[in-house]
Amino acid sequence: MERLQQQIEFLLEIDKLKTVFRKNYISDGSRAENDAEHSWYFAMAAMVLGEHAGTPVDVARVMTMGLIHDIVEIDAGDTFIYDDAAKLDQEEREERASKRLFGLLPADQAASLLALWREFEENATPEARFARSIDRLVAIILNYKTGGKAWRQHQVPAHKIMEINSRIENGSPALWKFVREMIQSAVERGFIEG
Amino acid sequence: MERLQQQIEFLLEIDKLKTVFRKNYISDGSRAENDAEHSWYFAMAAMVLGEHAGTPVDVARVMTMGLIHDIVEIDAGDTFIYDDAAKLDQEEREERASKRLFGLLPADQAASLLALWREFEENATPEARFARSIDRLVAIILNYKTGGKAWRQHQVPAHKIMEINSRIENGSPALWKFVREMIQSAVERGFIEG
Repeated sequence: MERLQQQIEFLLEIDKLKTVFRKNYISDGSRAENDAEHSWYFAMAAMVLGEHAGTPVDVARVMTMGLIHDIVEIDAGDTFIYDDAAKLDQEEREERASKRLFGLLPADQAASLLALWREFEENATPEARFARSIDRLVAIILNYKTGGKAWRQHQVPAHKIMEINSRIENGSPALWKFVREMIQSAVERGFIEG
Repeated sequence: MERLQQQIEFLLEIDKLKTVFRKNYISDGSRAENDAEHSWYFAMAAMVLGEHAGTPVDVARVMTMGLIHDIVEIDAGDTFIYDDAAKLDQEEREERASKRLFGLLPADQAASLLALWREFEENATPEARFARSIDRLVAIILNYKTGGKAWRQHQVPAHKIMEINSRIENGSPALWKFVREMIQSAVERGFIEG
């Protein structure tokens, strides 16, 4: 029962992900999205869009990466993808958080989730690259749907959105083509400055 | 590109799950939990607790069931597990919703997710039975953590909590033993009436 007790403690601790808020909004624009619902959305997008990966991937593995990729933000907070200053010490903050949070689990499960989270962070496997493409894509479709609300609020110009997100191509050329057209459309419709 | 367009439309539609609220609270008691973050929590619990299934299960399949099991509530609304009146037409409402929502996807994906959702609903495979145990367990640990907030608010007595949740045993005798002790502890600590 000690093992089950540790697993339940871990689950109660990661419930806090529901109180970590992101910069982007949910699709009706009414409020910011939290990390827990973003993680669900990421996994759903990976499932539905898995066939568009540039290299064939183990979709279930990408979905699991999505479910766990932001758990470190319970300790480390959300780092806005367009905030260069905050990104400087992001790695160190998240590394520390990953050890504390996954470390609540029995050792075998902790090691396995830590390895999967690091694989995502290191971006060196087809699964990790595709997962990062999905992470970016879901933020963009929600931003587009809300008329570019978070982009405008944080004054992110189109060229920066293009530059940061062009890495989507590493995981999926098809999704990058789709996103590029969406960003162009956001400029044409006046959501953001070109 | 038509296929991708349909997939993106589906994703934008299911984003609404973030605005469907449940009766139970998140672990700090500050607000009700929404269906999207519940679905993430369900998948995480299935991953971490998969070893406690009464019959060995395909854990990835249970996780996927968790991710999609509440999507029908976008149209059908959340039905409180202790609300016998609302449960009368729940099946019909959810069946209609499943066709509209999964039907937004390309036909092959729609058929596959509809089949998985029905498997969960019909409760006839080890995966479905374990998934239902997890769905109940996550609500109980959050309710316990908040001092029985939702139980008290809706005046659900301990014997009803015991009766409804005893079905956890069908998916996992080990988790049912844990939950039963948690409910007894909730009575002893005065969270709910015995």
